[in-house]
Amino acid sequence: MKSEKISELTTNRLSVYLRCLNEIAVAGAKTVSSKALADRFHLNSAQIRKDLAYFGEFGVRGVGYYVEALRNHLTKILGLDRENRVGIIGAGRLGTALADYYGFRKANFTVAALFDADPKKIGKKVGETEVKDIKNFAAVVKQDNIEVAVIAVPAEFAQAALERVEKAGIKAVMNFAPVALKTSNGVKLKSIDLTTSLESLSYFLAQPPKQSSRNVKPKVKDRRE
Amino acid sequence: MKSEKISELTTNRLSVYLRCLNEIAVAGAKTVSSKALADRFHLNSAQIRKDLAYFGEFGVRGVGYYVEALRNHLTKILGLDRENRVGIIGAGRLGTALADYYGFRKANFTVAALFDADPKKIGKKVGETEVKDIKNFAAVVKQDNIEVAVIAVPAEFAQAALERVEKAGIKAVMNFAPVALKTSNGVKLKSIDLTTSLESLSYFLAQPPKQSSRNVKPKVKDRRE
Repeated sequence: MKSEKISELTTNRLSVYLRCLNEIAVAGAKTVSSKALADRFHLNSAQIRKDLAYFGEFGVRGVGYYVEALRNHLTKILGLDRENRVGIIGAGRLGTALADYYGFRKANFTVAALFDADPKKIGKKVGETEVKDIKNFAAVVKQDNIEVAVIAVPAEFAQAALERVEKAGIKAVMNFAPVALKTSNGVKLKSIDLTTSLESLSYFLAQPPKQSSRNVKPKVKDRRE
Repeated sequence: MKSEKISELTTNRLSVYLRCLNEIAVAGAKTVSSKALADRFHLNSAQIRKDLAYFGEFGVRGVGYYVEALRNHLTKILGLDRENRVGIIGAGRLGTALADYYGFRKANFTVAALFDADPKKIGKKVGETEVKDIKNFAAVVKQDNIEVAVIAVPAEFAQAALERVEKAGIKAVMNFAPVALKTSNGVKLKSIDLTTSLESLSYFLAQPPKQSSRNVKPKVKDRRE
């Protein structure tokens, strides 16, 4: 089985392809060429062919890819054919915004619970989701089959939150706290560091304006960093 | 001037170092070694030395780095000694959460205005920030000296939002819509794609559990992808 060797950069691109195919499917197309995909979504057609060749043959010369078959295959590879149940730690502004985030539902992620230590927040509802006492985290994780944790607490509490998450047996974690966390072996951590992204924009703005375009590369896309 | 050649990965690391130095400064330390920095914040000490050597000498053998001098220098390099004024397009859950996001203030970013097309939202306040009519975007940008735009609209409206932003002369953009955007030359775009990050977690969870640790690399940190 080849998929064991897929790098994270590849799975990131597969995510993007799937999203594009979903849009194309809505529009009713049965097949699509790598060139049409690339043109419409500002992607690289050679990269598309290379990435998709990796999973076997979904392309037919002169026809393109079969949209439905490729969608199903990518959905399965990315594990999106099964529900992923999420617990969000931190019921502040960010945590509550995330509880309602459409992207979770689209990716078949269900926010099962929010967790907080603040007695004023515990027991409240955010949309359909209840805020539970962080003290009961492990029990709720077990009872609600939570497999993914989202850390949305201030930086100084993030490492402790991660340790609680790991102790409860969770292997997939998304961290929004602007701090580097130390994970245990076998735990997958994705950090979304808005501050770093902001500071790279700030750096860009702080540079003296350029007369020539020597230092400004034309960018068609800049999906990540 | 060497700084022209700094890559984005380097500026991302400088962001992280600055954050660590800020913490150390609060604790009262005057100097710090690359090893102490690395140990405390789960970083790579050789990489720290390499990155900081790039900007000239802030380290003294046997002493370490002078915390205050290095902080000031990094703050300047990253453009954080000047205010960056931000306009957020989209006053939905995400946009309003961002308007209140502590990380903005920490990075010397001031959210000057939110923008929306919904008459029910226009004129309302989110904390101190007013929601303005997106139709008046260019005028508000000029009047309020906005230099950074944050796109927090649904995917299908994101490209149009970006074009409006570019027309208003803004050169630095942060995009939260899960879609690849086409930028003009000279515009810096940072995309924060939560869906892709979610799907990479989903992919990880969908893999069969491994008996050995052959495919699970020990990760001390995974700041980005």
